[in-house]
Amino acid sequence: MHPNLKAALDPASVALIGASENPNKIGGRPLDYLQRFGFRGAIYPINPKRTEVQGVKAVPRLVDLDSAPNVAIIAVPGDDAVRALDECGTMGVKLAVMMTSGFGETGPEGKAAERAMVERARARGMRMIGPNTQGLANFGTGAVLSFSSMFLEEKPQDGPVGIVSQSGAMSVIPYGLLRSRGIGVRHAHATGNDADVTACEFATAVASDPELKLLLLYLESIPDPEHLAEAAAIGRSRNLPIIALKSGRTPAGQATASSHTGALANEDRVVDAFLEQHGIWRAKDSVDLVRAAELYLQGWKPEGRRLVVISNSGATCVLAADAATSAEMEIPRLSEDTQTRLSAILPGFAATANPVDITAALLTNSALFSQILPVIAEDPGADAFLVGVPVAGQAYDVEAFGRDTAAFAAATGKPVVVTAPQAMVAAPFKSRGLPVFAGEAEAVSALRQFIGHQEMIARAGERLGSAASFQSYRDRQDEASPPRLLDEAESLAHLAAAGVPTVSHRLCRSADEAVTAAETFGGPVVVKGCSPDVAHKSELGLVHLGLRSLEAVRGAFEACRASLATHGATFSGVLVAPMAKGRRELLLGAHRDPFFGPVILVGDGGKYVEAMPDTCILLPPFTERDVRDALARLRIAPVLAGTRGEPPMALEGYVAAALALGRLMTEPGSRIASVDINPFLVGTGNEEGMALDAVVLQHDGRTHDETP
Amino acid sequence: MHPNLKAALDPASVALIGASENPNKIGGRPLDYLQRFGFRGAIYPINPKRTEVQGVKAVPRLVDLDSAPNVAIIAVPGDDAVRALDECGTMGVKLAVMMTSGFGETGPEGKAAERAMVERARARGMRMIGPNTQGLANFGTGAVLSFSSMFLEEKPQDGPVGIVSQSGAMSVIPYGLLRSRGIGVRHAHATGNDADVTACEFATAVASDPELKLLLLYLESIPDPEHLAEAAAIGRSRNLPIIALKSGRTPAGQATASSHTGALANEDRVVDAFLEQHGIWRAKDSVDLVRAAELYLQGWKPEGRRLVVISNSGATCVLAADAATSAEMEIPRLSEDTQTRLSAILPGFAATANPVDITAALLTNSALFSQILPVIAEDPGADAFLVGVPVAGQAYDVEAFGRDTAAFAAATGKPVVVTAPQAMVAAPFKSRGLPVFAGEAEAVSALRQFIGHQEMIARAGERLGSAASFQSYRDRQDEASPPRLLDEAESLAHLAAAGVPTVSHRLCRSADEAVTAAETFGGPVVVKGCSPDVAHKSELGLVHLGLRSLEAVRGAFEACRASLATHGATFSGVLVAPMAKGRRELLLGAHRDPFFGPVILVGDGGKYVEAMPDTCILLPPFTERDVRDALARLRIAPVLAGTRGEPPMALEGYVAAALALGRLMTEPGSRIASVDINPFLVGTGNEEGMALDAVVLQHDGRTHDETP
Repeated sequence: MHPNLKAALDPASVALIGASENPNKIGGRPLDYLQRFGFRGAIYPINPKRTEVQGVKAVPRLVDLDSAPNVAIIAVPGDDAVRALDECGTMGVKLAVMMTSGFGETGPEGKAAERAMVERARARGMRMIGPNTQGLANFGTGAVLSFSSMFLEEKPQDGPVGIVSQSGAMSVIPYGLLRSRGIGVRHAHATGNDADVTACEFATAVASDPELKLLLLYLESIPDPEHLAEAAAIGRSRNLPIIALKSGRTPAGQATASSHTGALANEDRVVDAFLEQHGIWRAKDSVDLVRAAELYLQGWKPEGRRLVVISNSGATCVLAADAATSAEMEIPRLSEDTQTRLSAILPGFAATANPVDITAALLTNSALFSQILPVIAEDPGADAFLVGVPVAGQAYDVEAFGRDTAAFAAATGKPVVVTAPQAMVAAPFKSRGLPVFAGEAEAVSALRQFIGHQEMIARAGERLGSAASFQSYRDRQDEASPPRLLDEAESLAHLAAAGVPTVSHRLCRSADEAVTAAETFGGPVVVKGCSPDVAHKSELGLVHLGLRSLEAVRGAFEACRASLATHGATFSGVLVAPMAKGRRELLLGAHRDPFFGPVILVGDGGKYVEAMPDTCILLPPFTERDVRDALARLRIAPVLAGTRGEPPMALEGYVAAALALGRLMTEPGSRIASVDINPFLVGTGNEEGMALDAVVLQHDGRTHDETP
Repeated sequence: MHPNLKAALDPASVALIGASENPNKIGGRPLDYLQRFGFRGAIYPINPKRTEVQGVKAVPRLVDLDSAPNVAIIAVPGDDAVRALDECGTMGVKLAVMMTSGFGETGPEGKAAERAMVERARARGMRMIGPNTQGLANFGTGAVLSFSSMFLEEKPQDGPVGIVSQSGAMSVIPYGLLRSRGIGVRHAHATGNDADVTACEFATAVASDPELKLLLLYLESIPDPEHLAEAAAIGRSRNLPIIALKSGRTPAGQATASSHTGALANEDRVVDAFLEQHGIWRAKDSVDLVRAAELYLQGWKPEGRRLVVISNSGATCVLAADAATSAEMEIPRLSEDTQTRLSAILPGFAATANPVDITAALLTNSALFSQILPVIAEDPGADAFLVGVPVAGQAYDVEAFGRDTAAFAAATGKPVVVTAPQAMVAAPFKSRGLPVFAGEAEAVSALRQFIGHQEMIARAGERLGSAASFQSYRDRQDEASPPRLLDEAESLAHLAAAGVPTVSHRLCRSADEAVTAAETFGGPVVVKGCSPDVAHKSELGLVHLGLRSLEAVRGAFEACRASLATHGATFSGVLVAPMAKGRRELLLGAHRDPFFGPVILVGDGGKYVEAMPDTCILLPPFTERDVRDALARLRIAPVLAGTRGEPPMALEGYVAAALALGRLMTEPGSRIASVDINPFLVGTGNEEGMALDAVVLQHDGRTHDETP
């Protein structure tokens, strides 16, 4: 975390350049908020025409202050804003919040002006939020440096949730949704154009707030994953889960984001993999971002996915069981002992195994609820609970239902979600901080998210430790030379040296050598023309399979040489290898993402990998378990595991190859741009399997670790 | 629709057997409701101990009435209820609503008692709702024959929505959700154990209500698809869309449903196919059932999926574009003319192509909203609109936003959804009946449902016409003899006769015949052992591929005969056929579902059809377009369409074969139990393709159309 960012969250003094008497103007709103929300630092309105603004003593110019304020808000237009920013830098302001619009979002010229501004600020040791930002809001310190009108609509209350957003609207939409549910929100920050401090970098500062229990992010682009990795590491180190809404998932969304904030497009499945790797849950939209918030604020530590459902409606029981199965949660049978005890309380026709159906008997005896909960609390087979009260009302003691459920949750220490579509039934649960939903699918989905997110964070910790462990790849990438193609023999040699099992083969420069090699291998062989100019051999007739005679080998050699000559391609020789037999052709690849660096691709191989992709992405560093988990998510997983009475396929060699590729792409000095192994043959009779063919692209110039 | 069901919805007179003075008892609540909600027919409380109940003249016994009431509610326990039901039947009551519990839901004995009850009632021309039902509620006629307390919690208001549910809770949960949104609900009926009148049969009566605009169903089982088909046909004939929540989707859900109402499990993907075929949209849970209701009540006739997004937040624009793409909707560019006109109104940095980003300029000029809507209304490229106002408040003229949007929707006649997470911003849109959602994903999903449902209904109409066109298969199925396996030659002959293209082949009883056949075909042949006792030939070594010599053919013949003899299986001969070459092995199958009748399965073939299924279901009657649409939904669709420069595969023969199977399974007298064609080879060089292997199971006994 950059030291100046601390000032943004808890400044000793704030100057407001362009302070207005009218609290509904951009230059007036923050001044009103600072006073209204209890900011205890010094406030300096800057206004050349007034000696006092909104009751606070003002000075005409920033330089009229005795010393530099920690933070300056810039709310004057156009060139005045640029001059004000330069003055702030000169004077020694730590951080400027530049609300002024009309820079990077207007096009290339504005972008250039913005970049120059940032360079001058940085040269003077100043950081900047914005431009084009709605501002920052910290209700813990009262440092509400924002002109959002939302804080008038939904009254602030300090609390355990923080929000950092590139967009102004999305910094306060989650705020509004949470506040309307009674949840306190401490931070609601918008970073605007992200010209200097980005949302991800600012998140590192907010994540460091020790009282936060949940951090929400809205991002339209992630140009600086290293900051997000750092925020995630801070979060893991102190038990602060992070949920991110990364928009621009689709081409239409990316195009819109680009015209909104000039956001650079990220490859969406790499974003998915990156967030998962660092333990950040990805939300699907604005409502999804806050859906499960109550679950995160209870201090629950879920231990598994076994769900027990309790309701007074059989339909809710059925719908919850469906939802649980769809969400990959179990509905375990309660123990015989628990069932016996429940049967003694409930009517004879009530279901007790799980789901527990109290039935409409609850209408005539509200106490059934409080009687069964302690029994269920003692059952060892439950990890989480869904309490459904879809129908109740005046005739029921709903206040007791809420009270008893809260006591039950406290006693078990296990997550509880409630479904209650009627507002008056939901109220006594909500008032106790329990997560309440209208429907079963939403309740189970929120619960599943919470449990899955805890699992994901634990895995990220095992994988990455407490370090951020992510280096930016952008600058190096920009300056590397364009990569060149290695021929197949070079490619295989490179991979073999890195630890990838490869097919035995011989590179032969003459027909006689090829014939000798085929004799040595014995049995049918494959002959392939080898050239650093050709990536797709079969299209040029350079692949000759299943050759059984020495004449055929000789003929194939000549055909390859002739074809390469015809196409004006370098002839490196032919590669002779025995025909390999195996059970499945997989693929294994690697490339460098311009933002996220090395990406390893595992999946099913064959001819239609583009048309019918069945692949998973891994970002280094990853473990053997990560590779096996990725393979288990593939569509072909049942075939790899063994189906129709077939034995499982040995994947040791493939897993080792994936790990080797991960190392190869990340090792200091690595010059590999991309690797495409297709096929990697598994089920070859040993546990190794082998790469049969590979294309490697390599940079010849500066290596990836030589930063200027 | 059965004539007696009309009485259930609009009875001239209602007797209440077990009428109670206490309106909070089961026998008191309906009496209170009938008076409270303006029922205009005669009300007869039956109570042996009172001359008046809740201010209404009572008689001791049903037989004390001068004439039979139309409807009788039975709210007395146990054997008294059975006696009351019999009395009702004897007296000539048309319909009994039996609220009493303790029958079919308690187990086999209760089920038997229930069945006997129903038989006696039917013999006397009476129909029954229940037992174990919460009752019926029609707020159009005031016939509220229900003891649900929900109608006290959410005040009724007659309106265009009807609900029919097997479960009591699920008859009023949607009611409560809709009423809290201000939507009027006319019908909220629960059918309980469905011992006589089922929810689906009752739906035929409710669907006939000419003022209904939306019908919602909750079903845990569909034992009588013929009634659901009839309800759907009525709905199509008068523009009444039906949405069904069918629970018991998963094994855990089915097990729970079985212990809830003894519901029989339906195969879930057949349910999916059936509902789609009849134009019924399937909801995912209780909230999903009512999510899009407002969209259905406006009379909109959507013409396509091109969505225009309008918001004052760039983030909403991005999120809506993402959501639209995920929902397979387009974000078209607005015309140049429209963009020019929008640019003249909006600030220079506003986006005008679509999404249209009004930007925060709306804060200082609320009139921008009303100015741009008429311009966008005239663009010819839009089918639907999303208006997002995620942030607004006191400084904005939100009342005008609601008014202008309603006028815009009326002017265009095209669907509009609104996102407005803040309650005070949502209010002026909601008060005008516009569909308002908190988030973009939910709004787009509701819009997509509405548009997709209209498409589905139109397709169902083209396919089925106005007829219900569904015959129950249950009774016939039960009585048919167990099917027997046909050998491959018989199977292929059967299919060829039905119009399925099949491989040329010859059934040979001797080795000489086999050799002659091989000579006739020329080139390599396949020899397969043929037996009506063996379904899986390869496991017994009965498949000999690629035989190139006459000795090999002779050897294969002997091997097949020996193997079948070893396994004690009948030897029908061997089937000799030329080795067929093609591009892809598909599968094509048919079977009879115990509830839904003939089911045709199309999909990818090969070894791993169970482990990695890629199939779609079709229910006859279906069209060539239905088959092609099903193929287009497969994972292999891009390969069938031609990828990597390959030409598309000719599918004429496959489509014809699927249509032939549909006819074969439904033709009068059909005795086929199941068909399994794997592989059906396509890309054979002609457009036919061909079935290479098939297994047919056939009933020898009574045919399927011979009903007793």
